[in-house]
Amino acid sequence: MQKATTSTSSPILFTRGVPAQEALPTALMSECLQAVLAGPDGKTVLQYGHNGGYAPLRQLVAEQYQVAPDQVLIGNGSLHLQDLLTALLVKPGDVVFTEQPSYDRAIKTFRRRGAKVVGIPLDLDGIHLSALEEALTQYTPRFFYVIPDFQNPSGVTTSAEKRHALVQLAEKHGFWLLEDVPYRTLRYSGEQLPLLRDIQSTRVLTVSSYSKLISPGIRVGYIVGPREIIKPLTALAEETILAPVLPTQAAVFEFHQRGFFEQNLANLKQLYAPRLQATINAIKTYLPDIAFAEPEGGFFISVTLPRESNYQQLLSRAKEEGLMLTDGSAFFADFLSEQEAQAGANERFVRLPFCALTPDEITSGIQRLASLIQA
Amino acid sequence: MQKATTSTSSPILFTRGVPAQEALPTALMSECLQAVLAGPDGKTVLQYGHNGGYAPLRQLVAEQYQVAPDQVLIGNGSLHLQDLLTALLVKPGDVVFTEQPSYDRAIKTFRRRGAKVVGIPLDLDGIHLSALEEALTQYTPRFFYVIPDFQNPSGVTTSAEKRHALVQLAEKHGFWLLEDVPYRTLRYSGEQLPLLRDIQSTRVLTVSSYSKLISPGIRVGYIVGPREIIKPLTALAEETILAPVLPTQAAVFEFHQRGFFEQNLANLKQLYAPRLQATINAIKTYLPDIAFAEPEGGFFISVTLPRESNYQQLLSRAKEEGLMLTDGSAFFADFLSEQEAQAGANERFVRLPFCALTPDEITSGIQRLASLIQA
Repeated sequence: MQKATTSTSSPILFTRGVPAQEALPTALMSECLQAVLAGPDGKTVLQYGHNGGYAPLRQLVAEQYQVAPDQVLIGNGSLHLQDLLTALLVKPGDVVFTEQPSYDRAIKTFRRRGAKVVGIPLDLDGIHLSALEEALTQYTPRFFYVIPDFQNPSGVTTSAEKRHALVQLAEKHGFWLLEDVPYRTLRYSGEQLPLLRDIQSTRVLTVSSYSKLISPGIRVGYIVGPREIIKPLTALAEETILAPVLPTQAAVFEFHQRGFFEQNLANLKQLYAPRLQATINAIKTYLPDIAFAEPEGGFFISVTLPRESNYQQLLSRAKEEGLMLTDGSAFFADFLSEQEAQAGANERFVRLPFCALTPDEITSGIQRLASLIQA
Repeated sequence: MQKATTSTSSPILFTRGVPAQEALPTALMSECLQAVLAGPDGKTVLQYGHNGGYAPLRQLVAEQYQVAPDQVLIGNGSLHLQDLLTALLVKPGDVVFTEQPSYDRAIKTFRRRGAKVVGIPLDLDGIHLSALEEALTQYTPRFFYVIPDFQNPSGVTTSAEKRHALVQLAEKHGFWLLEDVPYRTLRYSGEQLPLLRDIQSTRVLTVSSYSKLISPGIRVGYIVGPREIIKPLTALAEETILAPVLPTQAAVFEFHQRGFFEQNLANLKQLYAPRLQATINAIKTYLPDIAFAEPEGGFFISVTLPRESNYQQLLSRAKEEGLMLTDGSAFFADFLSEQEAQAGANERFVRLPFCALTPDEITSGIQRLASLIQA
């Protein structure tokens, strides 16, 4: 299909889920920051204050999620909000569930705050429900961290049925659902499914961010939930950081006001959709026997290599061939059972973030991967 | 001296140490942000990365403190860096020393991370050395948090002799000195004394910020220290927040490059120096019997009201008279002894932040305070 790519060409980085460099809207952000600083809130965003986030943006997010502004906290990126939330909810030794695999930095965050993090296996259409029910006979987690749309790292989208089941189980067993939806808006095809909070919001905290939609460097993330959580979380955020960085939050509000958000989102979809398609095509071509979740959006596809493939020292062998991969085991929390641990899916798991690579790079990269794992 | 001010005039806020609204450089910041986003690092500051802070700013701070760039970590405000540092150094039950009184949010931060926080009494020229030596027979703290220049909340500047003594004691007893110097550059008269790190840097961590020098809303703070601390602290910061907000850090660098920093600093001094003088004059006029530290810079003066004064329910009585005060006890950590606790200085402590008030407001405010405490 392509000409052979050797290790002398530039390395292909399947390592981090970052936006494409060409998608970062420097001119639009500059225009927004200028407007903010020349406008009536210019002094406000340079002063202390707004502990829950820049008030107009808080209001805007509240409208999007149909909640009151005091049910929204905007911080310096969603990861830090998750850190603070864990500090609020988790005592050392408490159990937190994640999907297995899940976002490596989230697993680390929960553990750093003292949680025992147990991974519930993920099927191609969302959580493995009988495994979850089994796990709930052993533990009642403080919260269950799920990424229902275009999951990081697997690319899995949770089906409507499983979303309903998750919400019912959370109500029944009394745990929080922490749904992380940074990729949700980046849907390249198909129909949107309801958020967990759309089904029933009493046990749901929703966290999201502008990192994938405008820029990661501005670090604007937010959490939406009931006041019983958002009020003490806002107090904890104030105690911890005093106030979030305000000029960038105000620029995000201005970005919406000027209609840049929709325009930028359309550009992102146009750029990323062919990259997703190239990834799907390359897997089907070069790794035809591997079942994988075919996402309709987001940043990630993943494959679990077959047991009989040659996956030993894959990272270092791939690096020699100019293919940079992330260690798959980082995406795995504690296994639910010894049996699962022995299955060793973590050692055979490969995440393929496709947004910051061209279709040609993607195709070459997956071709290289396929040749590396030939037994 | 002034005409009588009644509670019908607008309230006078001696509550928070914030910059004057008129001192916030909206136009200069806008110019800097535009230059950054149009420049070669425009994409860089919108992307992930730079976990230790925007590299050119890290380099600049390193040059200022004559250290290597990897001895500097720039974060989203110095308070959060103190939070992370405490997470790194303190296990629950460890002891931390602060000056007594000290910055209320720092005391809270150390306690939230599990420290027992013991206050070492402050004289008008810095720490009470024999009390410190006595305390060191009881405890070896993990660190001693000091604000050597124009201390918050007292206004005290630590003498050169006491700076040397602190450094010697830290070396002898093996604790870290955490010197917080956000006000240091705002010296309106007199000669600068050496930083603790200038005397001997092996046991010193220096934390500072641009909140008082450019803007608090941009949340640009930093910590300087030996690699044995800065390296794991940078890793912990990356795990906690992924990366700091970059456009505002780059704007601070640009602010220096364009010569705005010196110009802005001169403006601040011109604005604040008469406010400090008005505060000193008013205390001498209306509270003539009270000994207090006369600062030569910074944001704060404080008074400890005499025991015989009428300080009961002072906050609520002051509020009725349109004078807003902060609860003095918030600035006090655990007392070193029962005797000190009984002296009750915390109940009689009044902080007077003067930078965001006009000389007339300051004079009226202190006049009101004087009449309120008449027995």
